[in-house]
Amino acid sequence: MQEIKANDPKLRSWVEVAPHSDFPIQNLPFGIFRTESQLPHVCCAIGDKLIDLKALHVMGYLENLPFTLEDMVSDSLNRCMRHGKQGMRDLRNRVSKLLRSDMPDLRDKEHHVRQVLFNQNEVQLLMPIKVGDYTDFYSSEDHARNVGTMFRDPAKALLPNWKHLPVGYHGRASSITISGTPFHRPKGQTNASDETMPVFGPSKQLDFELEVAFVTFDGKPLGENISTAEADDYIFGMLLFNDWSARDIQRWEYVPLGPFISKNFISTVSPWLVTLDALEPFRVPGPVQDPEVLSYLKYAGDKNIDINLQVAIKPEQASETIVSHSNYKYMYWNMEQQLAHHTVNGCNIRCGDMMASGTISGPHEGSFGSMLEIAWKGTKPVSMNDGSTRSFIQDGDTVIIRGHAEKNGVRIGFGECSAKVLPSLP
Amino acid sequence: MQEIKANDPKLRSWVEVAPHSDFPIQNLPFGIFRTESQLPHVCCAIGDKLIDLKALHVMGYLENLPFTLEDMVSDSLNRCMRHGKQGMRDLRNRVSKLLRSDMPDLRDKEHHVRQVLFNQNEVQLLMPIKVGDYTDFYSSEDHARNVGTMFRDPAKALLPNWKHLPVGYHGRASSITISGTPFHRPKGQTNASDETMPVFGPSKQLDFELEVAFVTFDGKPLGENISTAEADDYIFGMLLFNDWSARDIQRWEYVPLGPFISKNFISTVSPWLVTLDALEPFRVPGPVQDPEVLSYLKYAGDKNIDINLQVAIKPEQASETIVSHSNYKYMYWNMEQQLAHHTVNGCNIRCGDMMASGTISGPHEGSFGSMLEIAWKGTKPVSMNDGSTRSFIQDGDTVIIRGHAEKNGVRIGFGECSAKVLPSLP
Repeated sequence: MQEIKANDPKLRSWVEVAPHSDFPIQNLPFGIFRTESQLPHVCCAIGDKLIDLKALHVMGYLENLPFTLEDMVSDSLNRCMRHGKQGMRDLRNRVSKLLRSDMPDLRDKEHHVRQVLFNQNEVQLLMPIKVGDYTDFYSSEDHARNVGTMFRDPAKALLPNWKHLPVGYHGRASSITISGTPFHRPKGQTNASDETMPVFGPSKQLDFELEVAFVTFDGKPLGENISTAEADDYIFGMLLFNDWSARDIQRWEYVPLGPFISKNFISTVSPWLVTLDALEPFRVPGPVQDPEVLSYLKYAGDKNIDINLQVAIKPEQASETIVSHSNYKYMYWNMEQQLAHHTVNGCNIRCGDMMASGTISGPHEGSFGSMLEIAWKGTKPVSMNDGSTRSFIQDGDTVIIRGHAEKNGVRIGFGECSAKVLPSLP
Repeated sequence: MQEIKANDPKLRSWVEVAPHSDFPIQNLPFGIFRTESQLPHVCCAIGDKLIDLKALHVMGYLENLPFTLEDMVSDSLNRCMRHGKQGMRDLRNRVSKLLRSDMPDLRDKEHHVRQVLFNQNEVQLLMPIKVGDYTDFYSSEDHARNVGTMFRDPAKALLPNWKHLPVGYHGRASSITISGTPFHRPKGQTNASDETMPVFGPSKQLDFELEVAFVTFDGKPLGENISTAEADDYIFGMLLFNDWSARDIQRWEYVPLGPFISKNFISTVSPWLVTLDALEPFRVPGPVQDPEVLSYLKYAGDKNIDINLQVAIKPEQASETIVSHSNYKYMYWNMEQQLAHHTVNGCNIRCGDMMASGTISGPHEGSFGSMLEIAWKGTKPVSMNDGSTRSFIQDGDTVIIRGHAEKNGVRIGFGECSAKVLPSLP
């Protein structure tokens, strides 16, 4: 049989996929789902449905792959991911083959099809990854420049190290939650001026940060580094990431060691792990890096990815307003450089580590990735469809991030990364 | 039978314990060990020996406790710790009772004793905790003042937020390793001045940081906070912690988001989890906190702990030189305040999270907790016993942290936290 690539634009599935679906057969992102009566299973999205990989395993459709039944009956993808890049690639290729319109093996077994396909809106999607360590970068030049302009000298908006290394810091893994999880507005210490006494209460400057994150396989032993050329072998895929931030808490706490409780109260991720393989056709060149980077940060080929991103705010009693159109291609530092920098000192990465991009802002107003920038420190409040305005996020607001890559008629989407803000607990 | 407390200074064990041992019957810290032929087991230290809790379980000595055999055949304490504070307290009390000189149950069963006791130096001790999230605080006033004096204005050595909240930041969990693990000097970017171009190479300013860390049980759901009054219920115990730091990498990378690859290449911990219960008799008052702290940071009772700490440097071909005598009692912010602050925004903690104190410096020269301070930025190199001097740590040096509390003839020790620095990999 001739080999057809899982990304081929000509591929069609016997499962019906709507024209603008995020999940055509060329995508096949991985997730974890649960029905009321069952343990969590590994699955892939296809159109409005998902295919249950545990059921496929039981029926023998995953034969000659290294995965056990236990890998597929799991509350995270981590067990599967122990089989590494090639293992997950083979698994996705197998699922692709089973779903192709020209392959009768599964298509024509109606009693099997009934057992393996579920409507996404009739099951519960769970957090797809048990996150080990979480790292957040700060790799969008426009974002760093906007923040530097607002809070420091506009003439020296970028700090001296910024163009020499992908600035990053460690974040909190425990509070990363799946899309759809509402949360209470965080409380904390704030202080409007360094000369006054701090006060305690609900944050008055709750913000989103439009980000994407990548998830890693097990890396090398502690002490060894991963080069930019090797990096893709250790990256499984990506998801949308909202790095919720309380700006007023952040301002007071962050010197000299960085953000802490202004960010660790929650982060929200989209439910589907879109593989790097599925995104490969959407690679584009990155910006010219000037000054020249040190040799361990040099890379070959196109390493940015053209992913359209948007952020919407939906007030409790109104329809949503889109407040940002941005794109992952704007990043100054790419994932391969981020991972090479992270490990150049010998730091080890593990299966399930998550590394976020930092706020993704584009060069124009309308493409900024946080309310801080969009409303420019509250000086340019944004109008909502219902006539209200926003400088930051209000109680009852739902913030929704969406993203997709599109080319040659193929759309590789991420689904939604959405969370609603509830009032602070008393 | 009358209840005798596990901490009673009059308790004696039928296992011989040398007078200055870190591990009398009043301590009974938990660890993980492995012999050549066996899977890892949970154990407690007693004198120069350890007692195998898996073997105790098999023989029925842990009856009427909630622990399963699987809890005891594990490569970390996390499974046991799922039983919470009371579960671990009951377990330690049971082990204490079995080891008391006046209790014949185990003492007089020679064939059992042969199977449950091992010499510590004949087994391999493993990393005791599978660390979830790792947080590092910055809670020693003397350390913060020293660093502020060196790098900023001595008249404003403490930043404005420092006395209002326990400054902290997230660190890397994957690279926390057990005492005895050597490592290669990290490489990274450094830049002597912001006006020049950075260079890449081995750090020239490798430093230790004398710290202790506490380990948590599962906390409350995301969104709820843990008060200072509740904090002790969520803290299992403590261990010694060396937060290795590359000062030259740190200086260049740390603005504006904090330390990153200057610290995540390795951290070293001691092998024994000393319970908070064992340390309770050594509680002492903390410093007067002025200005008054916000109400969520107020606490009742004595919450500092009197733990003598020392740091020694052992050059490759020479005996060790002690370079610091410090004490955990010097902390400005205690663990209960740290945990209350960490969760006041709703951030959740989980079983196996680790939270380190930050460098513990005392008020006098000789009690500083890092080479940066001891050699005062290289201006006061320290003499070793072999006549050499140190401003920072050299290849071949082993840095050893030791700690113990002592009162009424009872010494509760931590064992050693030690690691040797190897040359950078080529």
